Amino acid sequence: MNLKTYAATSVGSSLEFKSIDAEPNGTTDIVIKVTHCGICHSDVHMIDNDWGMSQYPLVPGHEVVGEVVEVGGAISHLKAGDRVGVGWQRSACLECDECVSGNENMCDQTKSVIGDGFGGFADHLIVDGRFAFPLPDGVESRFAGPLMCGGITVYSALRHAGMIGGQRVGVVGIGGLGHMAVKFASALGNEVVAFTTSPDKAEEAASYGASSAVNVREEGALENYQGKPLDLIVSTVPKALQVELYLNLLKSDGTMSFVGVPDEPLSVPLFPMLVKRRRIMSSPIGGRAEIRDMLRVSDQCGVAPVIEEFAMADVNTAMQKVRDNSVRYRAVLVN
Amino acid sequence: MNLKTYAATSVGSSLEFKSIDAEPNGTTDIVIKVTHCGICHSDVHMIDNDWGMSQYPLVPGHEVVGEVVEVGGAISHLKAGDRVGVGWQRSACLECDECVSGNENMCDQTKSVIGDGFGGFADHLIVDGRFAFPLPDGVESRFAGPLMCGGITVYSALRHAGMIGGQRVGVVGIGGLGHMAVKFASALGNEVVAFTTSPDKAEEAASYGASSAVNVREEGALENYQGKPLDLIVSTVPKALQVELYLNLLKSDGTMSFVGVPDEPLSVPLFPMLVKRRRIMSSPIGGRAEIRDMLRVSDQCGVAPVIEEFAMADVNTAMQKVRDNSVRYRAVLVN
Repeated sequence: MNLKTYAATSVGSSLEFKSIDAEPNGTTDIVIKVTHCGICHSDVHMIDNDWGMSQYPLVPGHEVVGEVVEVGGAISHLKAGDRVGVGWQRSACLECDECVSGNENMCDQTKSVIGDGFGGFADHLIVDGRFAFPLPDGVESRFAGPLMCGGITVYSALRHAGMIGGQRVGVVGIGGLGHMAVKFASALGNEVVAFTTSPDKAEEAASYGASSAVNVREEGALENYQGKPLDLIVSTVPKALQVELYLNLLKSDGTMSFVGVPDEPLSVPLFPMLVKRRRIMSSPIGGRAEIRDMLRVSDQCGVAPVIEEFAMADVNTAMQKVRDNSVRYRAVLVN
Repeated sequence: MNLKTYAATSVGSSLEFKSIDAEPNGTTDIVIKVTHCGICHSDVHMIDNDWGMSQYPLVPGHEVVGEVVEVGGAISHLKAGDRVGVGWQRSACLECDECVSGNENMCDQTKSVIGDGFGGFADHLIVDGRFAFPLPDGVESRFAGPLMCGGITVYSALRHAGMIGGQRVGVVGIGGLGHMAVKFASALGNEVVAFTTSPDKAEEAASYGASSAVNVREEGALENYQGKPLDLIVSTVPKALQVELYLNLLKSDGTMSFVGVPDEPLSVPLFPMLVKRRRIMSSPIGGRAEIRDMLRVSDQCGVAPVIEEFAMADVNTAMQKVRDNSVRYRAVLVN
């Protein structure tokens, strides 16, 4: 078949309309008619080959929403006409210990939508049907894309950092990921404290469910924090942080999880970890079971990202706003 | 009553025989006739006031074993004649969230045997009876002292790092703590890999139950490690490590726990943590329930430390060997 895409043809290039021939494998692949596709900073990293794994022409887009139009013979849980979402992962082996534990996101043979094929900046997407997720009726298509990558990333991080509800949860950085973290943690019965560098974002965080906000630009804001200890903290900031100051805000057995990954190693003092048995961790997207759970939570609790919509043909305008960090909070392309 | 002690009278001093008057409180305190007392590096740190919390005269000794000779009116689980062990902790509030969860070791009002009273380098010890633990018949008095501090520290670290048996466990550093970690992990049904800088200790580790050993002084020993991934790693080395090299040996969801705490912050790259959802943590001693469990394991599985015995009167000789790191692996004073 013929995919009508917007592709980067070389490192860092703007996106050009490009027609690409590709075929579903007839067994496990499905074809999705793309209706919406979110833009994630990982698309920028892939276009710019920041991770040294990009192949060109590169079709970005891994927050894909659309309608199933063709289903391979081995796929039984989907049918033409289904409304589905697809995130970062294109396929996995589905046989290793990770996969059979529901941790397909950590399979050694994982393939990504945009690194191992053509992504969602297109009219159609070909993907392993086992990594396409039917969307509950309450999850609108325009909101579903950002849930499939940014949403699952923070939802999974919150869960693995020990979120069970009735807790105090810190969210560092109120951006694309952070505002969804606030919404998920708040919707699931937690008191949320937002840590941000922008006073205006503190107000916005409250509208997403945060009980309080700390402006970390204020001198001594963390050292003098008077709130009760936090059960867990999720940091969405891809910059070096003063880890010790955040660790000291955690209860015993509290975890600080990083989904924003700075380039430099973190400097982590062990003593504040030892005295209260605190932990540091990091986690990537989520497995299939978690994605289903996340979509159910979004449906039942009305968790949706704040988005700006752009026509697919205006992809370069949208991409520039993402590069400028001026989107609040996620850009979504509409076909 | 009159305690016949060996005390440091000033920062870093050798220990002198010193008679000290002290009285049990009549309610929650018990008096123990000390038969054995282990020596821990924390005793050295306290004598030297390395943590800025020492008061003199300071009577070291927080791996105390003896016979109960007097029991306060509020203590019902002990009677005169009982053989008991006491570790680092002298008392806790027993009412806070930590205490009622069995995490008395993280109570904000914790008091230590040697920081808030007189320790076990003496003929008698006065301590809150709720922090004295009856010793199972199979745990010999000469071995019980090191279990009460070093033993519980590594046992608790293994548990909180996710040890459930049938796993592959790494132990970094084969010394006082490390050799007990190998023994506990091995006795509880795990394959143990010892990481050491001494070829002779690699052999010894095998005799404690390690399945294999890695000489980390060998060029590329960690980079070229060919063994299967580890479920968890406990580091007992109080020096900076190349954390990334160890992290890469862990399975997904694997934890590296530090009971050896270097002075400088760890340099922790997040990417190897993110890709496999790995964790870093640290933990202090253990709560009362864990101490009971640890003693049962020692009893049922025959886990005992390797010790050198010294007469209590030879305390300065023993202390010098501890300072010189020439004891294999724990020094025990005998009254």
